[in-house]
Amino acid sequence: MTKKRRPTQLRETSIQRGYPTAAAGSVLITMGQTRVLCTASISSSPPPWLPKDPDTGEFTRGWVTGEYSMLPGSTPDRKRRGPDSRSTEIQRLIGRALRAAVDLEKMPGVMITCDCDVLCADGGTRTAAITGAFVALSDAISHAMSEGLIRENPITNHVAAISVGVIDSTNHLDLDYPLDSNAEVDMNVVMNGKGKFIEIQGTGEQGVFDREQLNGLLDLATKGIKQLIQMQKKALKTTLGSCK
Amino acid sequence: MTKKRRPTQLRETSIQRGYPTAAAGSVLITMGQTRVLCTASISSSPPPWLPKDPDTGEFTRGWVTGEYSMLPGSTPDRKRRGPDSRSTEIQRLIGRALRAAVDLEKMPGVMITCDCDVLCADGGTRTAAITGAFVALSDAISHAMSEGLIRENPITNHVAAISVGVIDSTNHLDLDYPLDSNAEVDMNVVMNGKGKFIEIQGTGEQGVFDREQLNGLLDLATKGIKQLIQMQKKALKTTLGSCK
Amino acid sequence: MTKKRRPTQLRETSIQRGYPTAAAGSVLITMGQTRVLCTASISSSPPPWLPKDPDTGEFTRGWVTGEYSMLPGSTPDRKRRGPDSRSTEIQRLIGRALRAAVDLEKMPGVMITCDCDVLCADGGTRTAAITGAFVALSDAISHAMSEGLIRENPITNHVAAISVGVIDSTNHLDLDYPLDSNAEVDMNVVMNGKGKFIEIQGTGEQGVFDREQLNGLLDLATKGIKQLIQMQKKALKTTLGSCK
Amino acid sequence: MTKKRRPTQLRETSIQRGYPTAAAGSVLITMGQTRVLCTASISSSPPPWLPKDPDTGEFTRGWVTGEYSMLPGSTPDRKRRGPDSRSTEIQRLIGRALRAAVDLEKMPGVMITCDCDVLCADGGTRTAAITGAFVALSDAISHAMSEGLIRENPITNHVAAISVGVIDSTNHLDLDYPLDSNAEVDMNVVMNGKGKFIEIQGTGEQGVFDREQLNGLLDLATKGIKQLIQMQKKALKTTLGSCK
Amino acid sequence: MTKKRRPTQLRETSIQRGYPTAAAGSVLITMGQTRVLCTASISSSPPPWLPKDPDTGEFTRGWVTGEYSMLPGSTPDRKRRGPDSRSTEIQRLIGRALRAAVDLEKMPGVMITCDCDVLCADGGTRTAAITGAFVALSDAISHAMSEGLIRENPITNHVAAISVGVIDSTNHLDLDYPLDSNAEVDMNVVMNGKGKFIEIQGTGEQGVFDREQLNGLLDLATKGIKQLIQMQKKALKTTLGSCK
Amino acid sequence: MTKKRRPTQLRETSIQRGYPTAAAGSVLITMGQTRVLCTASISSSPPPWLPKDPDTGEFTRGWVTGEYSMLPGSTPDRKRRGPDSRSTEIQRLIGRALRAAVDLEKMPGVMITCDCDVLCADGGTRTAAITGAFVALSDAISHAMSEGLIRENPITNHVAAISVGVIDSTNHLDLDYPLDSNAEVDMNVVMNGKGKFIEIQGTGEQGVFDREQLNGLLDLATKGIKQLIQMQKKALKTTLGSCK
Repeated sequence: MTKKRRPTQLRETSIQRGYPTAAAGSVLITMGQTRVLCTASISSSPPPWLPKDPDTGEFTRGWVTGEYSMLPGSTPDRKRRGPDSRSTEIQRLIGRALRAAVDLEKMPGVMITCDCDVLCADGGTRTAAITGAFVALSDAISHAMSEGLIRENPITNHVAAISVGVIDSTNHLDLDYPLDSNAEVDMNVVMNGKGKFIEIQGTGEQGVFDREQLNGLLDLATKGIKQLIQMQKKALKTTLGSCK
Repeated sequence: MTKKRRPTQLRETSIQRGYPTAAAGSVLITMGQTRVLCTASISSSPPPWLPKDPDTGEFTRGWVTGEYSMLPGSTPDRKRRGPDSRSTEIQRLIGRALRAAVDLEKMPGVMITCDCDVLCADGGTRTAAITGAFVALSDAISHAMSEGLIRENPITNHVAAISVGVIDSTNHLDLDYPLDSNAEVDMNVVMNGKGKFIEIQGTGEQGVFDREQLNGLLDLATKGIKQLIQMQKKALKTTLGSCK
Repeated sequence: MTKKRRPTQLRETSIQRGYPTAAAGSVLITMGQTRVLCTASISSSPPPWLPKDPDTGEFTRGWVTGEYSMLPGSTPDRKRRGPDSRSTEIQRLIGRALRAAVDLEKMPGVMITCDCDVLCADGGTRTAAITGAFVALSDAISHAMSEGLIRENPITNHVAAISVGVIDSTNHLDLDYPLDSNAEVDMNVVMNGKGKFIEIQGTGEQGVFDREQLNGLLDLATKGIKQLIQMQKKALKTTLGSCK
Repeated sequence: MTKKRRPTQLRETSIQRGYPTAAAGSVLITMGQTRVLCTASISSSPPPWLPKDPDTGEFTRGWVTGEYSMLPGSTPDRKRRGPDSRSTEIQRLIGRALRAAVDLEKMPGVMITCDCDVLCADGGTRTAAITGAFVALSDAISHAMSEGLIRENPITNHVAAISVGVIDSTNHLDLDYPLDSNAEVDMNVVMNGKGKFIEIQGTGEQGVFDREQLNGLLDLATKGIKQLIQMQKKALKTTLGSCK
Repeated sequence: MTKKRRPTQLRETSIQRGYPTAAAGSVLITMGQTRVLCTASISSSPPPWLPKDPDTGEFTRGWVTGEYSMLPGSTPDRKRRGPDSRSTEIQRLIGRALRAAVDLEKMPGVMITCDCDVLCADGGTRTAAITGAFVALSDAISHAMSEGLIRENPITNHVAAISVGVIDSTNHLDLDYPLDSNAEVDMNVVMNGKGKFIEIQGTGEQGVFDREQLNGLLDLATKGIKQLIQMQKKALKTTLGSCK
Repeated sequence: MTKKRRPTQLRETSIQRGYPTAAAGSVLITMGQTRVLCTASISSSPPPWLPKDPDTGEFTRGWVTGEYSMLPGSTPDRKRRGPDSRSTEIQRLIGRALRAAVDLEKMPGVMITCDCDVLCADGGTRTAAITGAFVALSDAISHAMSEGLIRENPITNHVAAISVGVIDSTNHLDLDYPLDSNAEVDMNVVMNGKGKFIEIQGTGEQGVFDREQLNGLLDLATKGIKQLIQMQKKALKTTLGSCK
């Protein structure tokens, strides 16, 4: 059903901001058939383990965390509900990626949870989740600032992610499920708006790779992430509507 | 944000069939701010406890079940993931209601799970889930018939549901969250296309009720369900598109 | 083994108050072969989420809750221990029914848990549990008053419950297991001492029902509950003995 | 409330056989205020791990196991439901004790579960459970023989148990809760009808003990168990009635 | 592989103190092929339920507890991770045994957890765990005293344990797995340095036993424990090295 | 306590093969203070999901998996038992790394579990686990071949792993805990004996990194892994002794 695309091309991507939920930030990101609903909720009570100033008793930092889940209908064989080891690993990655985008000391006592629920899974759900959740997080932070919970904008940089891989000895950008299933090497790359790496996770699923292949894949990822960050910026300029 | 409506009026309702997921049937139902994604998945292997013909060893019946969950971003205070006693009770209701719409003996060895995931919760999620899930179930059954898994259509009747309640001594149809929170009596009604009751669950949350009030509420529910079944019929006539 | 009874007759019922346990209230209710031990325990420390007066810091309300469980030996095929979705649904019903009998504001800071453990299950365990638990709750409240934990009696009314159903197109009161298994319609009704409804849960297990059938079933339930409330009143007049 | 008894005397004990439940064997044992309902259920399908004859494919042994639980109302401070480490330890003891009373090879393919549910806990619940469960097990075995599931009676001997302890340097038989709480040494003894030991569990809870004290305690236990076995024999001669 | 030993002889035993871990006390005990790593960790924050002086608000007691686990590679058939009923029972025994060695009132507000992880299981792991854990506990207490957490040494006595049993009608000391599997009677004995019993757990696994056999087994256990306590004393005189 | 080492130097490392456990392969790897016990157990029954030849019904592949756990005494603050999200993520990495070393089609129907239990944790436990587990796996495979379970050696290559990172803008090899806590960038690298990458996981924990830094870190990792593979080869030439 997808149009034929070149190995170096992103799938058709849209970032729908203000998708109607009850969360402070809410984004539906679509990359080809992959669709992830990213909501960012501000916790009503700060977590007890956040560090406090011993003198004033006030919190000195905030926290950003991620959760990842696939809806049962997101896969052709119904996905059973509940956490599994794969989703545990993915949500740890999402949390680390998002925290790299904020200065936690500028949001003392505020905890934001970014929930990434996959509505349709066709490869690249974890990277789409990061790219979408950054936008939802931005909106939740704006909301917290408008409510007076945060004074100064803690966002230090954009964060986006993409998968790359080697299929039949060719480097590919943005793997959908059929590509991913046949990849000799599979790599998820998270970068910021200045072109620096935040996270690289490369696996030789059905093969191994050398430095040259690594470099080719990183070039491709860098290019793709630049485009995604452009889309994030564009989305963040639109006006919002929500079900709140 | 919702327009002012009369106590006897349904909220603005839409039934979007073929919402892009990977499930055999997939419907997004919207009633006011309440939004529920209903997907119906056909199990690839029949459950072991389905009854079998002792002679032929073949299954003599099928099964339809429901699951209900609220996404974390569906409520202003983030909903923690995982089952709780309320969702357990609701998904039992959804399963019973849907099974009343099918002749399980006409779908031997086939199990269909209807997942109802609440994207935005503003009251009436369980009844919206039933109304939407019926349409998703219909599409999954059509799919199973086109695949040759089911020979004869097992659907015997439409099923839809609505909430009614008493607020400030006035009967109301289709309670949103503010109404529901203030209801003296709260009732969920499930009916079929012939105007017969499948399930009635009435609770005096903050009060009690007598036979007269009960009759008034059931009249209102009957009227609302008739309208919902019209919308189901209209939706089932549209052409489908999906992400499969 | 049971005597032949008419469709409109209750099974032989006894409410044994002061059944020897260590709880503040303790009742063994027997309806035919069905036997449920209902104990009401006063929590030694109030639950943290009970609302408090912001000025005085004192609790403004109390709480009443129910738990339901079947002992392994209560069914011919041994029942495995531990909660399941059916018991979750039932204990939510028990809790709602009992709370409708008390003014929670008259028992600030007091939590009473009514445990309903089925010793022998022959149909109608949930309604027997409600009828018996009300008496155990009354005794626990008397105990709390004698201990000075509660000043004014918070009980506003009696609460009792019964099942009714349609079997072979005939309305039946107080379904035992063989009747319940063959019921086309099954309904549990909770009422108070003034003849008002607290809860109605009607299900077309193997059929559907119309308004006329509903009315017939409610007439029958009303009659049965009146008799049960008479028995509760009689039991509450006896003198107590316990193992404490 | 209990009458003053001598340190070498059992509490007032009764073994009520055929207590109305749905299990094959069902006994209510009362020792002072302690009351335990013991039911023995025959499993409808043999457990998969039972050893089989490699040639015939038929089971060569059966199994007997125990479960122990305290009802919430059995203690003045309500006992939370669900297994804990103490009940785990106790039910392992009950299982071992009961298996010492039967020849498992004479009940091939049959599994009997003895559930011991404490209705009122005033010390000595685990030993009362063993003494009562033996009688319930005997009845379940009779039932299995009458159903043709077992050909030859597998019971090889009576089994009963009692607690003994040292309080204020005095040896005591059959500790109730106040005695048990103050015991320097606490010992549970399981013996068979021939006066042989099946299990001894002695603990210096708040002290230590020497060989002389041990011998004194074992003398006392031997005497008490003889009396309990007489009561088991007497109970097994009565005629049965049940709710089945 | 083990040398032939007499029935009254301990297996070759070593107590390696200061085995490199990060815990305050750390001991590797080897008895034949059985190897248990015992570490004693001082909790950084006292448990909330420790009793406090109502006047000063300071803790009046400390606590010592044990945990027991078998590593997956400790048995020829890989042991699955996670607690089971056997390990639950064993760790309760370890905790009781160790608490009999200390005066908890001399370590107010201090909690020490003794973890016993079986590296290789060839019988007698629970008794080896107790003997080794006592030494680890001693080292943790010395550490706590050097840190000023405890003022006066709370250790009142040595504690050690051994298994004894009857195999082919012969009394055996220190059962390895082949002996244990064939034991008619199996007994675990815990004693202190003054030759007093702390705990006796005797089970007729495949038989029963009388007073004479009991006495023979206790004589043997007493002899073995004396030797183990000598080894503990010797080990406690060596100088420590650790990975801290 | 560790000697001062250069940033480009491995910690003192030893691979003790045949560490006494009951597993088919058993290795204790020490890197500085970090100590991990790696055991490889052959499953007695093949997992049901292994693919089978539809004609012969025989398994066509085997499986290798990893589990990772930290013993409670492995950290100064006692580590609570049981899986957590970090260990879940780590054991998935271990499994992928080990599977890259074997041709699963050469071990049809055989499952080997490599358990990595951390005895002392001072940084780099996951990479030490991989390096040690490869040797344990090799021994388990030799064992399976000697038992006739595997015909042809399925090992295709060595696998080893190391951490690298940036601390104070300097590249470091083999991070211990103090280095790891202060790392701006932290990277785990898994390579095979031919110098190819199997997995790269790089995280900007407290910073970001560019292509130049990445290349420097990979150079360092390549050098370290070459040395580790030399040690693996040397260890695999020694003769074995075990507790079996």
